[in-house]
Amino acid sequence: MAKCLVAQSEGPSVTVNAILAGIVKANQLDHLYDKVLGGLNGIEGILSERFVDLTDMSEYENKILCQTPASALGSCRYKLTRTTKQEFDKLVKIMHKHDIEVLIYIGGNDSMDTVAFLNEYVKEKQIDDLRFIGVPKTIDNDLMYIDHCPGYPSSAKYIATTALQTWLDFNVYTRKEVFILETMGKDAGWLAASACLSNIVDLLVLPETVFDETLFLAEIKKCLKEKNKCYVVISEGIKNADGKLIADKKISASNKLRNLIIDTNTASRCKVLELSSIQRCSVIQQSLVDMDESFNLGVCAYMYSNKAKYSGHMVTINRKNSDKYDIEYGIVDASLVIDKIKTFPKEWILDNYHGITKEAYDHILPLIDKNTNIIYENGIPAYIKPYYLNK
Amino acid sequence: MAKCLVAQSEGPSVTVNAILAGIVKANQLDHLYDKVLGGLNGIEGILSERFVDLTDMSEYENKILCQTPASALGSCRYKLTRTTKQEFDKLVKIMHKHDIEVLIYIGGNDSMDTVAFLNEYVKEKQIDDLRFIGVPKTIDNDLMYIDHCPGYPSSAKYIATTALQTWLDFNVYTRKEVFILETMGKDAGWLAASACLSNIVDLLVLPETVFDETLFLAEIKKCLKEKNKCYVVISEGIKNADGKLIADKKISASNKLRNLIIDTNTASRCKVLELSSIQRCSVIQQSLVDMDESFNLGVCAYMYSNKAKYSGHMVTINRKNSDKYDIEYGIVDASLVIDKIKTFPKEWILDNYHGITKEAYDHILPLIDKNTNIIYENGIPAYIKPYYLNK
Repeated sequence: MAKCLVAQSEGPSVTVNAILAGIVKANQLDHLYDKVLGGLNGIEGILSERFVDLTDMSEYENKILCQTPASALGSCRYKLTRTTKQEFDKLVKIMHKHDIEVLIYIGGNDSMDTVAFLNEYVKEKQIDDLRFIGVPKTIDNDLMYIDHCPGYPSSAKYIATTALQTWLDFNVYTRKEVFILETMGKDAGWLAASACLSNIVDLLVLPETVFDETLFLAEIKKCLKEKNKCYVVISEGIKNADGKLIADKKISASNKLRNLIIDTNTASRCKVLELSSIQRCSVIQQSLVDMDESFNLGVCAYMYSNKAKYSGHMVTINRKNSDKYDIEYGIVDASLVIDKIKTFPKEWILDNYHGITKEAYDHILPLIDKNTNIIYENGIPAYIKPYYLNK
Repeated sequence: MAKCLVAQSEGPSVTVNAILAGIVKANQLDHLYDKVLGGLNGIEGILSERFVDLTDMSEYENKILCQTPASALGSCRYKLTRTTKQEFDKLVKIMHKHDIEVLIYIGGNDSMDTVAFLNEYVKEKQIDDLRFIGVPKTIDNDLMYIDHCPGYPSSAKYIATTALQTWLDFNVYTRKEVFILETMGKDAGWLAASACLSNIVDLLVLPETVFDETLFLAEIKKCLKEKNKCYVVISEGIKNADGKLIADKKISASNKLRNLIIDTNTASRCKVLELSSIQRCSVIQQSLVDMDESFNLGVCAYMYSNKAKYSGHMVTINRKNSDKYDIEYGIVDASLVIDKIKTFPKEWILDNYHGITKEAYDHILPLIDKNTNIIYENGIPAYIKPYYLNK
């Protein structure tokens, strides 16, 4: 019996704490470890031995943790690489010193790198008492070897809802105008595409499609002629035919398009909305599927964590080939996942920026279909004060 | 028996349709009128005789209408003035032609002008078969002779929730940084002040306080020294000591402050979030108090609408002097309301941008305390397709 260390890394989401809650709860039921420790601010905090003891979390705290957005343990953008052996060594020493036998690391692509590299390192050094497990989460939904990433369904639900609501707001005046909603997504269009679940999007531009100025403006004109309004959704990472980003350091992609629309007299009014961090922290739009799956993926990571052969692996979600939405949990070598990006399938994108196919819609819909019951205190969602603020 | 005409004007909110639903429902129960017509796009559409018949709206449609954000009848920014007598005359002719005996106009300050002016006009012309009633709604909460305006509680709830959630998101990294949340509010700070219900706001700047650059930067520095982070909330309409707006045509107030913070090296990172139209159309954060009061205010307007002596009046909400939050509905001469602005009370603002007093908190809290049960369809809130889109 020893300790299990859990940490969170990279951009937060509304279910990243449900994964943590699942791990803590699993140990309360199964007692594989004496203690479940939280490492504060990811690898960065672990290297400074900043820990918090989560072992005896109450049932209520566990429940509220599941509806607390953003990483309750704090996060970091700190990236271990194969060349940072000194830090690997330091980390191993810290784990030994604190009697920690497993690190469960919750994060995106860079965090799966960390899991794979640390496992490589201990294998190479023939250290056989330490294990590393990765739990994926990224609202970008761009990891390979997983049907969809925890955090994505809730952000997709938020974006579809927000598209609908801002479209209703945008339509009330008779004036001719364009609205541009910009979502996150540097390399993959999953988030922007989810706006189409609202069934109101006129034009959609993803990083996977070439942004062609002439075609885009022609489509806006056509839409304005027909409806007097045009509702556009784009990813932050849209690119031209040369693969060059539309956004630059000074101006976002949506504001660039806005200026283009105004300067070419395509429309005299164009409103821009950049969703920024709200799209990854709105618990009110938490998807029940996302919450349940995130919690279970935490339990799953815990279950695999005491088996040496799964060190260096990432737990995963596989969609079953069934009529009704169903999944099963699995595990995959983290080194397979790293440095790859799962883009939005080209065959799911309609021509002329006309949105997504029925198949794409049917793929995303079950992920956003149900809601969690949020507990409120004084008019706002109850939340757990981040653990890193108590240290 | 004749017809009642209802129309909506100015910026939409998440409960402006609950007012409409209340009026329609009241006539289904009381049958004062043969028909309840909706005028599309406010006065603008009424002058073009664009109507829709709402008399027999189903129970389900009524319910879903209450959770549909933005004006289902469309809106306008068209402002009648005392000098536009030709249009008054045209409107009177249209009302007579369609056998409409009352116009219930739902809107903000400019709409109460319309109600007062039309009433003056018919009195002057001794036309005694037409009546005009105003129903207030504005998320800005800046109308006089009403405790709080329908639409404000829901936007306040949205802003408090969003402040909390983006604060949690903003805190996860250890880096030193400033966050600026910008809410609507050109003249009054009610919306920005509501962010303080989250209990996380470090600095608050309202249009009612003078924006003093030196003091503001000193307070940011102090806060960063203490916590490494500083969460700032401002209204779009903040002004300097000369009463000059901080924002200009090219740049928002929040981006202006961001540049100031960066250029003076007060912090090297500063994130800005402008809530834009989301703060007035997010039904998920609908306040139950707001929804109920808005519906009831519609019923109330209907009840007063067949009494000649109340023509030219606006229905209102008065808070009772009781321990537990309670209100009563009333009516006030619309001409008293026009051209006045209810600002956020100076005595409720703490010095040095430190937020709001306990009294202010206690005033706003009961307005945001409870939630409505939103009905979903395919993962997003069910809604009524705007009536103006069917015409």
